[in-house]
Amino acid sequence: MEQLNELKEKAKLVRKWCLVSTTEAGSGHPTSCLSAADLTTVLFDRYFTYDTSNPLNLYNDHFVLSKGHAAPLLYTLFGMADAYPLEELKTLRRFGSRFEGHPVPKYKYAEAATGSLGQGLSVGAGLALAAKREGYGTKTYVLTGDGELAEGQIWEAASFAAHEKLDNLVAILDINRLGQSQETMFGHHTEEYVAKFKAFGFEVIAVDGHNYEEINNALQAAQHHGGKPFAIIAKTFKGHGISFLENKEGWHGKALSKEELEKALQELAPVNDSLRFQLKKPTQAKQPQHTGTVHETTQTFEAGKEYATREVFGEVLTQLGKDDKDIYALDGDVMNSTFTQAFKKAHPERFVECFIAEQNMVSVAAGLSRMGKIPFVATFAAFLTRAADQVRMARVSEANIKFVGSHVGVSIGEDGPSQMGLEDIALFGALPDVVILQPADAISTAKLIPQLAAQQGFAYMRTLRPKTPLLYKNEDIFSIGGSKVLRSSNNDDLTVAASGITVFEALKAADDLKKENINIRVVDCYSIQPVDADTLKKCLDETRQRVLITVEDHFTHGGFGDFAAAALASTGARFFKMAVRQISQSGTKNELMDDAGIDAAAIITKVKSVLKPQAVA
Amino acid sequence: MEQLNELKEKAKLVRKWCLVSTTEAGSGHPTSCLSAADLTTVLFDRYFTYDTSNPLNLYNDHFVLSKGHAAPLLYTLFGMADAYPLEELKTLRRFGSRFEGHPVPKYKYAEAATGSLGQGLSVGAGLALAAKREGYGTKTYVLTGDGELAEGQIWEAASFAAHEKLDNLVAILDINRLGQSQETMFGHHTEEYVAKFKAFGFEVIAVDGHNYEEINNALQAAQHHGGKPFAIIAKTFKGHGISFLENKEGWHGKALSKEELEKALQELAPVNDSLRFQLKKPTQAKQPQHTGTVHETTQTFEAGKEYATREVFGEVLTQLGKDDKDIYALDGDVMNSTFTQAFKKAHPERFVECFIAEQNMVSVAAGLSRMGKIPFVATFAAFLTRAADQVRMARVSEANIKFVGSHVGVSIGEDGPSQMGLEDIALFGALPDVVILQPADAISTAKLIPQLAAQQGFAYMRTLRPKTPLLYKNEDIFSIGGSKVLRSSNNDDLTVAASGITVFEALKAADDLKKENINIRVVDCYSIQPVDADTLKKCLDETRQRVLITVEDHFTHGGFGDFAAAALASTGARFFKMAVRQISQSGTKNELMDDAGIDAAAIITKVKSVLKPQAVA
Repeated sequence: MEQLNELKEKAKLVRKWCLVSTTEAGSGHPTSCLSAADLTTVLFDRYFTYDTSNPLNLYNDHFVLSKGHAAPLLYTLFGMADAYPLEELKTLRRFGSRFEGHPVPKYKYAEAATGSLGQGLSVGAGLALAAKREGYGTKTYVLTGDGELAEGQIWEAASFAAHEKLDNLVAILDINRLGQSQETMFGHHTEEYVAKFKAFGFEVIAVDGHNYEEINNALQAAQHHGGKPFAIIAKTFKGHGISFLENKEGWHGKALSKEELEKALQELAPVNDSLRFQLKKPTQAKQPQHTGTVHETTQTFEAGKEYATREVFGEVLTQLGKDDKDIYALDGDVMNSTFTQAFKKAHPERFVECFIAEQNMVSVAAGLSRMGKIPFVATFAAFLTRAADQVRMARVSEANIKFVGSHVGVSIGEDGPSQMGLEDIALFGALPDVVILQPADAISTAKLIPQLAAQQGFAYMRTLRPKTPLLYKNEDIFSIGGSKVLRSSNNDDLTVAASGITVFEALKAADDLKKENINIRVVDCYSIQPVDADTLKKCLDETRQRVLITVEDHFTHGGFGDFAAAALASTGARFFKMAVRQISQSGTKNELMDDAGIDAAAIITKVKSVLKPQAVA
Repeated sequence: MEQLNELKEKAKLVRKWCLVSTTEAGSGHPTSCLSAADLTTVLFDRYFTYDTSNPLNLYNDHFVLSKGHAAPLLYTLFGMADAYPLEELKTLRRFGSRFEGHPVPKYKYAEAATGSLGQGLSVGAGLALAAKREGYGTKTYVLTGDGELAEGQIWEAASFAAHEKLDNLVAILDINRLGQSQETMFGHHTEEYVAKFKAFGFEVIAVDGHNYEEINNALQAAQHHGGKPFAIIAKTFKGHGISFLENKEGWHGKALSKEELEKALQELAPVNDSLRFQLKKPTQAKQPQHTGTVHETTQTFEAGKEYATREVFGEVLTQLGKDDKDIYALDGDVMNSTFTQAFKKAHPERFVECFIAEQNMVSVAAGLSRMGKIPFVATFAAFLTRAADQVRMARVSEANIKFVGSHVGVSIGEDGPSQMGLEDIALFGALPDVVILQPADAISTAKLIPQLAAQQGFAYMRTLRPKTPLLYKNEDIFSIGGSKVLRSSNNDDLTVAASGITVFEALKAADDLKKENINIRVVDCYSIQPVDADTLKKCLDETRQRVLITVEDHFTHGGFGDFAAAALASTGARFFKMAVRQISQSGTKNELMDDAGIDAAAIITKVKSVLKPQAVA
């Protein structure tokens, strides 16, 4: 009884700071914090094992705030665990503060940036997966709202967690009935969620989310290891604890005025400001390490033979996996197309089959990254767009993830437009500072993948479906940000920069044009971002016309051409983008590249039209 | 008994053509067709009501092939319904054929392009929703695979269908156990799917998917209207009917060789090639109409007042909804932020609350578009990225959808990066021929929305969170592809083109620079795609320096700047993109625009640095 009373007092202090900080900020979501204040107070006070002086300790429990708009609650909880003075919460949402409107990495207690809803359970599954596979014996708690349970990703994550038997994962569902604009689909019918999570393979307990005894019993039950992930489905009230907020519509995302705050604090009074959570500390410590070592591949390739870069990727990654035990491979039921199947065979303990659920796959990778892993996420490039928002949020999280998209462009042939990755460079390229590579042959692929693994940060590599001949020698050197000039004379008219499959078309065009005494410089821009601006500038300086033609198997806007043009934009050069301008269709590779106007014949026509003084195409 | 035998004979002919066409093509997914051959034979032979001479008749039943890789099955079914000669299936996957690797709109019997998995149930829900609300009394059948049930969107669609009481929607689940690379998560444990669909509010029947009587009974039961959507969960075998294919791994996405085909056809023999489905014809006919009429808004705005363009959008759409009964509004629990709430109030019968499930929302819109509706899909721009793949597929489907993304850019302020739409132009812009608009004030917004509604095709409009002053007069004219020159003299040094919130910064910069005797031309590019190339070229010609500075509240790559630069790329002008170059944070609008380097001060600095002859920034 006394213990329950102490919980209540602590929850009052939690409530106070959620209210004070948002009023100070003039915006925020205090009522969304209040519904979960009791749940999280019991969790932090009784169960959560964590060393606040070492947030990355792999032996810490994890707390993922999936309902990111309840950020003030997260900030208050760790403040009450003495991670920092609660007073600092008064900087909430101010420019430069670590307490942003939604959690971001500069707040180091956040396991991931959240705020786009429905992603936290997947991040938690990634954390729990690494913890389970590597035996840290920790728990991962994920607090979700109810509105976000409408997001399909939640059910991808639930299936995944059950399939992986993540009995170290505890979902705490704050069913407060009210979404942003109205009641959620199921309101307070918590039995709907109970049925769903049971059907998805969870151990489920439904509780009154403001009853400390029930919450405590549920969290106690969640400590067991029964082979199933655990869900605590808590019926709560938005704004609970403050009479004029509780269960009222129209209070979503609104801070209290100073006067309203005063009134609310009077309802809470007396509040004991000295109360704190005494978190249990883990008894061991281990940090994730990222050495940045480049483990060079020893693969060599035979001149005269052809290789699919997607297959080379699979082989090189498998070899790298021997040298670097942090490398994980994730795939979405296409391991026999992306060739991660070789990795699975060699390193099953670090292979993660995500089935056809790309959103969960990406957010699981974000969780793995937080644990110091180097996840390689592979599927068809087209299907990475399925996880565009998860990619975006993983980038905000500053996750270290390497994406590999196969089957890019119209050159995949007969399968048709639904399977063609034609907007993937735009997707990854829009995000700041993402490395984007598209090697055209086996050797450049094999040399670049170890560099991707060693580099800390976001990267994307396009791999090709068709086999391509070797362009390079086994001893050639490639680097992120580099390029290779493949045709060059001291009598070149202009420059054609290509990437991936179109490199071969550019070479064919150059060879044919040469017969007509037209010399063009051809550059293989295997590094799309950063693009090799110096080399391209040099090409402009050394050719007769300051003209750059880019050729790519991607849609016109947002692709390689825009990166190349941007790098040279201030030079006053003239640019011509050759790229895919319409939705493609089924056909052979050659038919479709011809149809799209990105084959050798199209390049020849374009070069000639540009060189005609009267005609500027 | 005799009837059952006839079904079996018809299914043999279906099987034959799935095998023949894929062998002829040399690729495709015959075994994925065979598992569903019996299910669909019963459906087409007994239940499906459809006029093959009028695929868009709103009184037709609908058949959505969610497992798009089983396209040859779809083509065979309609061929056996005498829509075209079966012989034409021998053009499968050939360049120019309407029988592509996955269904696309040039095959007019496809309700939507499919091939990215897990989207068909949402499309079907959109079809069923319009049919139910408008009282056509039809059924929508959706055939899904089992691999794709891992996609979260399936569960978004399931929740939505149950919530909307779509008892005219029948999901037929082809549980053939095998995915592309291995067994699915649940294999043949159909009870897993039964539990899930029941928990999600479906009426469920489990059947042997190769037993005609069970299939028939299930489809018979599905004709009832019990207020719930219906799921037929069919245990099937991939490759069923051909001994060496049935239930075998390694046969996904593989056509039979000529010899294997011969063997398979021997197993089927004798096949009666004259068998056909006699589809029931609907007794009524009604076509979707798209008049293309622009219903001008009568809204006027008061000089001196400020308006949020997102709010103007809501008001104008509500007014338009009175004149055009095909307009629907869809929202994802943010109707009080996007301001579709006004539309809901005025036209509840055409408002669709999709809750926080953006993927389903977009594919439902694709279904509505197929029914001749004009769906406006509204949420935060950042959350449209959640549905990037559905947007992509809706574009392949040639759907007529208008997307409206609010809360764009760092100018939203305190909520932080997770809520900022900063890659939305890249997302929509990468797709071919998408109209992209970003009006900066109330008047241009009000004038453009009716044009969006009237235009047939894909369009995206960015709306702003903050209120902005009026730039224009109520009588001014705006058009898709247009722009407005807002500052101009015959002594201008260079041109600054802005869009949206940055227009105001460019104007401030121009006014401040003028005091220092630097004149810049300022253009409001409210139409981003198509961008007003003629006006921009004219600006280059009429200013002292052939320089274009673009300023936008979007990430650097793939935004407005790349559209503007591409339009002028062949002119040899110099370009400078001012845009958001890093992940932003919480803060005030002004702090964040300053921090991102897209405010007036930054523009002034950039203009001066460009004008200094020695310094090219």
